[in-house]
Order: sequence, then structure tokens, then C-alpha cells
Amino acid sequence: MAAEKEFFPGLEGVVAAETKISFLDTKQGEIVVQGYDLIELSKTRTYLDIVHLLLEEALPSAQERSEVEDRLKREYDIPAEVFHLLKLLPENTHPMDGLRTGLSALSGYDPQLENCSLVANKNRAYSLLGKVPNIVANSYRIIQKQEAISPRSELSYSANFLYMITGKQPTEFEEKIFDRSLVLYSEHEMPNSTFTARVIASTLSDLYGALTGAVASLKGNLHGGANEAVMHMLLEAGSVVSFEELLKAKIEKKERIMGFGHRVYMKKVDPRALMMKEALKQLCDTKGDDSLYQMCEAGEKFMEKEKGIYPNLDYYAAPVYWMLGIPIPLYTPIFFSARTVGLCAHVIEQHSHNRLFRPRVNYIGERRA
Amino acid sequence: MAAEKEFFPGLEGVVAAETKISFLDTKQGEIVVQGYDLIELSKTRTYLDIVHLLLEEALPSAQERSEVEDRLKREYDIPAEVFHLLKLLPENTHPMDGLRTGLSALSGYDPQLENCSLVANKNRAYSLLGKVPNIVANSYRIIQKQEAISPRSELSYSANFLYMITGKQPTEFEEKIFDRSLVLYSEHEMPNSTFTARVIASTLSDLYGALTGAVASLKGNLHGGANEAVMHMLLEAGSVVSFEELLKAKIEKKERIMGFGHRVYMKKVDPRALMMKEALKQLCDTKGDDSLYQMCEAGEKFMEKEKGIYPNLDYYAAPVYWMLGIPIPLYTPIFFSARTVGLCAHVIEQHSHNRLFRPRVNYIGERRA
Repeated sequence: MAAEKEFFPGLEGVVAAETKISFLDTKQGEIVVQGYDLIELSKTRTYLDIVHLLLEEALPSAQERSEVEDRLKREYDIPAEVFHLLKLLPENTHPMDGLRTGLSALSGYDPQLENCSLVANKNRAYSLLGKVPNIVANSYRIIQKQEAISPRSELSYSANFLYMITGKQPTEFEEKIFDRSLVLYSEHEMPNSTFTARVIASTLSDLYGALTGAVASLKGNLHGGANEAVMHMLLEAGSVVSFEELLKAKIEKKERIMGFGHRVYMKKVDPRALMMKEALKQLCDTKGDDSLYQMCEAGEKFMEKEKGIYPNLDYYAAPVYWMLGIPIPLYTPIFFSARTVGLCAHVIEQHSHNRLFRPRVNYIGERRA
Repeated sequence: MAAEKEFFPGLEGVVAAETKISFLDTKQGEIVVQGYDLIELSKTRTYLDIVHLLLEEALPSAQERSEVEDRLKREYDIPAEVFHLLKLLPENTHPMDGLRTGLSALSGYDPQLENCSLVANKNRAYSLLGKVPNIVANSYRIIQKQEAISPRSELSYSANFLYMITGKQPTEFEEKIFDRSLVLYSEHEMPNSTFTARVIASTLSDLYGALTGAVASLKGNLHGGANEAVMHMLLEAGSVVSFEELLKAKIEKKERIMGFGHRVYMKKVDPRALMMKEALKQLCDTKGDDSLYQMCEAGEKFMEKEKGIYPNLDYYAAPVYWMLGIPIPLYTPIFFSARTVGLCAHVIEQHSHNRLFRPRVNYIGERRA
């Protein structure tokens, strides 16, 4: 049976699921999410709208949006034991590993864990959307031996998240840009982490397990880890000239350059990158220092000329997060936090129309007696 | 691009990887592991031989086997903080979730975590093979508010594992049967958990993350959770007649019956099941009570007659573990522990010949304005 089907390394181009959630329409250049173009949504809608769209399959009214926000705020608190548990992790624990461990521990507090019905899964999704920003911000703080920070319910969902990360109440402008980054990271068809979550969920394992696996996936340098790699590269260079030299040297050494290219977009620009590029320009203008913007734009032009490849979301999200005062090790955990809603939607869909993922292999080893 | 390739739900029959590790040769009825038939290996070789075979790509000499055993024994200890961390988990934490959390926490103790070279990954694999039985046995004990148990290095690897689970030093006969079950569970081509581990590893995420995801996968009822479901079914029935009635009722209600059928074997017997059936017979003979064997055999015949499906490994491993005095909630964690070596081999192979898993979808939702 296996031998009859062609092997596509990395399952490139292979259809792994039927979905009503999203797809990358590369012909029309649209990221379709529940039927809408995500880029258009990001111009007028907030992250809470996207949460409602992905979990309730419709954009919310103002009233419904407000109910979603209240619901998430009621779910902010995480058990004190989870904080104690995070305190026991060694100081050099990777923030994504702290998040993975904290998220994994949460399952024991779910009295309905065995119940994977649509209703139970949706309740669980809202609960996790409330808790994940808290775990992200505090697992990092605790591993760094800093005091834990409490959520502030009088702030909006996104403002509170940014506050818990930086310890400072953001301006409305900062909140808006951060919220937009969450919208852009919220859902993106079938990247590795979403695929991981669906593969795990297909054994009828629960949402916590599926998301724990997705954290592990997103940590990888070829996936979510890219935004942090971009920022390190920008800081290492420090100027337009040095950045071009750094990129040139990497090209000569045939090193992979993070923040450029994407298997599905290929030779097209990631439209999410353009939105974050605009946000970076605005942030730079506001702060009166456009050096990061100049570097990024020069790098973009250089890579287009030299390699014909274009920036992806991570390339412009990284300097935006830098300008927002976010510690670099939190860039990937924030990506995960934003993607939590997309992951939950995929797990819910997988559980609703399940077929166990169980592919085959081409055996290329020898046969022995 | 996506539309050009056919969609196979659950990736059934789709080749997801080229591998030198193993494959299910359904035509010849062989589970080929590193070129050998696993069933033949299970008759003369021990789990430590399989560890060497999967990690060093050759069966060991007596000297090499002894070196593997010494190496694993040196890796038995886990940091005290991991025990403390497990103590913080709520009492009703699922043993697989305790294992997942403990395993996830271990990554912070690896000073070479960023290094995914062959050498670093192999060292990590031996370290995990030493530690996983300790975490399996003690996470369960600790969550049950029992005292932790220390490994005993004077016992063999498998005897120590069984000792840590039951608290009693096993007989040579019990050790041999338990070891054989570990051999049979050690590696099995591309089941969901192995696929999960490879998908995660393909982002260049580390071995701990890949294994954490595999625990989440294996927990699911459609995967590793099946062996526990089988034992509950046998205990619920309690006699041959009741068991047949129970199976009949499940068939009438169109309920899935755990322990039967396997996507890849389909209408053939899982040869691993036959090995464990034999072990069950021997155990029953030794203990002078063959009621479980009678029930299992009757159930096997009933299902063949009624549905034309055959038992898989879980069906006979469950009563074997019961006769060995192993608590039911540990059946799946033991499956994971045995499979750890196969999972490590797959992650190592994935990192050595990597291509990011990133499939596509068929969008079946609507388009909206």
C-alpha cells in the first residue's frame, strides 16, 4: 500500500486535513480565516473578535465581544501550585520549556478532562485563552527569579498581556500595535505546530496535550523560534551597513537566514509582514528613532535583490516587539499565546471529525537474517 | 498546489518519511526493525539488545550489552526538584500527564540543550532511557501520595523497572516476561506518537519536546490508552460468558472495542499479540489460575467470528501486566517507556535528514466578504 503513494518530504503540498478554519489562498494572496481575509480583519478588528470568530464561527457584535473579554478575564487566574512548580525549574530553563511544563501541569485541574465534546472543548479553550498570557508572563518572570505579576482586569485583554510582560501599563497606541500582532499570529492554516496539535488530538488525547505538543513544535528554530533569531541578528549588526554585511556573509556561508521565505508563500511577500512593517514605522516615528526600521527595510531590499526572497511575519514582528519593550525570550511564547485560539479551533475540529493520523514509511534500510 | 494532491484522511497509506529504522512488512508478516524481524528478536534478545540495535544500528556483543546496561544505570537518577515538582500536581492528575510534566521539566537540566548533533542526541537518548522508568514509577507513586522509590542498580534494567513499579523484586520468570513486553513495544514504524515526535523534531526542536508531544499522543484512547481500556473491559466482565456478552453488546451499540484491529495489519493477526498470548499462558500456568487466559482466548475467537478482526498487542499485554501485579494506570506509561528508544531513534534520524513537516489543507468553509 505504502509503495503506491509518492513520498513528499515534509509532506510538502500534501493535504493533511479538510478544514473550515483557514487556508492560505496563495493565488489571491489571502489568508482566509473563517471565510474572511485576515489582513482586512487586522485593520478593523481586535484579537477578541478573532477569538470569537475562531471559536464561535462568526464575528461578534459589540455585546458579544464584551462577553468574550469578561469570560477570558474570569479565567485569568492559575492555581498557586503551578507558580510553585515553575519556581522549581532550573534558572536556565528555556521560556518555551517553562510554558510547556506549566501548560502540561494545568491538565490535572480540569475535572472534565476525559470529556472531549464540543461544549467541554470550547470551555477549555476559553479557560486556556485566559490563562496562557498569565503563564507566559509569569513562567518567564519566575524562572528569572523575579516576582510574579498579577493580571489587571481593568485593562483590556491585550493591554493586560503587555502589562504583565513589561510591568508597565502600555499606551493606547502600544496596546493597539500589540493587539494587531496577536491578530496576525492568531491562525495560519497548517503550520507545523497546528499540525502537531491535530496529530496528537487525533488519538482523542485532550486539548492540554495537543497544546503542550504545539509549544514543543513552535520552540524549534525552523518555526516560532525564528522571530527571536531575527532580533539577535538585528542587534548583532546594529547598523544598516553592518546588517547588509552580516546577511551577505550568511549567504556566502550558505547559512539559513531567519525571517525570510515561507514554504507556502514562496516567492510572494507575507502580507502579515507588511502590516507589521507599517506598525514598526509608526512605532519608530513615535519614539523618534527609526534606526531599526531603516535596518529592516535595507535587509528586506538586500535579500530581495540577492536571493529573491521576502520577509515573513517574524522578520517585522521581532523589531516591533523590541520597540514595545518586550524581552526577546518572550517573542516565541507570545507567538504561541496568540496562536492558542487557532490551535484550539483546530483541536475542536479534529475531535469533531476525527480520523487517527497514522501514515506509513518508505523503508530504505537493509534486510538482515 | 494543494488541490492537485488527493486527500487521505488520517494520512492513511501516505508515506511520511524515509527511514532505516523499521517498517511493517504486511506481505511477509514481519515487523522489520533495523533489518531484523522483531518477533524473532523477541525470542532470543533482551530490551537492552534492542536499545543497542536502535541507537547503534547493530546488535551488541555481550560486552556491548553490558556497557549499555551500565550506561543506563548511571543515568537512573533524576533531579530532586523534579520529584518536588511532581508532588505539587493535583492528586487526580493522569499518570501520563504526570509523566509528560516531569519529562518536560527535565529539559532545563540539559546544559547542551541547543545541540541537536548526532552525538548530543545519542547521549540524551541514553540519559532519557535511564530516567524514564524512574519518572514513570515515581510520578505515579508521588501523585498517589506514596513514598518515592529508589532504583536498585544490582538488578537488571528490566527487573529494576518492574521492581520500582510493584515495590517487589520480580522472579527471573516475571522479569523475562516483562522484558519481552518491552521488546515488543520498543518500535513499530510510524504510529501516531512516533509521527508526533518526528513532526515536532522537524522544526529542530529538541528531544525532550518531541518526547513530551509523544506522551501526549500516546495518552489518547485510540493509541496507547487502549491497553488500559482492555483491562477494564476484562475486569468488568469477570468471566468468559460475561465477556462474550459484553463484546456482543458493544458490537450492537457500534462501540469501538479496544485491543482489536490495527490500521496497518488490517485482517491479519498482530504477531506481537501472539507472543504476549504465549506469555499470558505461561504466567497463568505458573500462578495456577488461567481464568484471564480463558477470557482473552474466548474474546479473541468471538471477535474473529463476529467481526473478522484480530487482537493487537494491547489486548494481550494488558492481562500480562495485570498478572505481573502492575497497576492499570501504569500500562500506558510503560508502553511509552518501552517506546522511548524507538522515539529517540526516530528523532535522531529526523534531525540527521531534516525536512520541516508543513502539509496543506482542503478548505471546505465558505468565503465571506
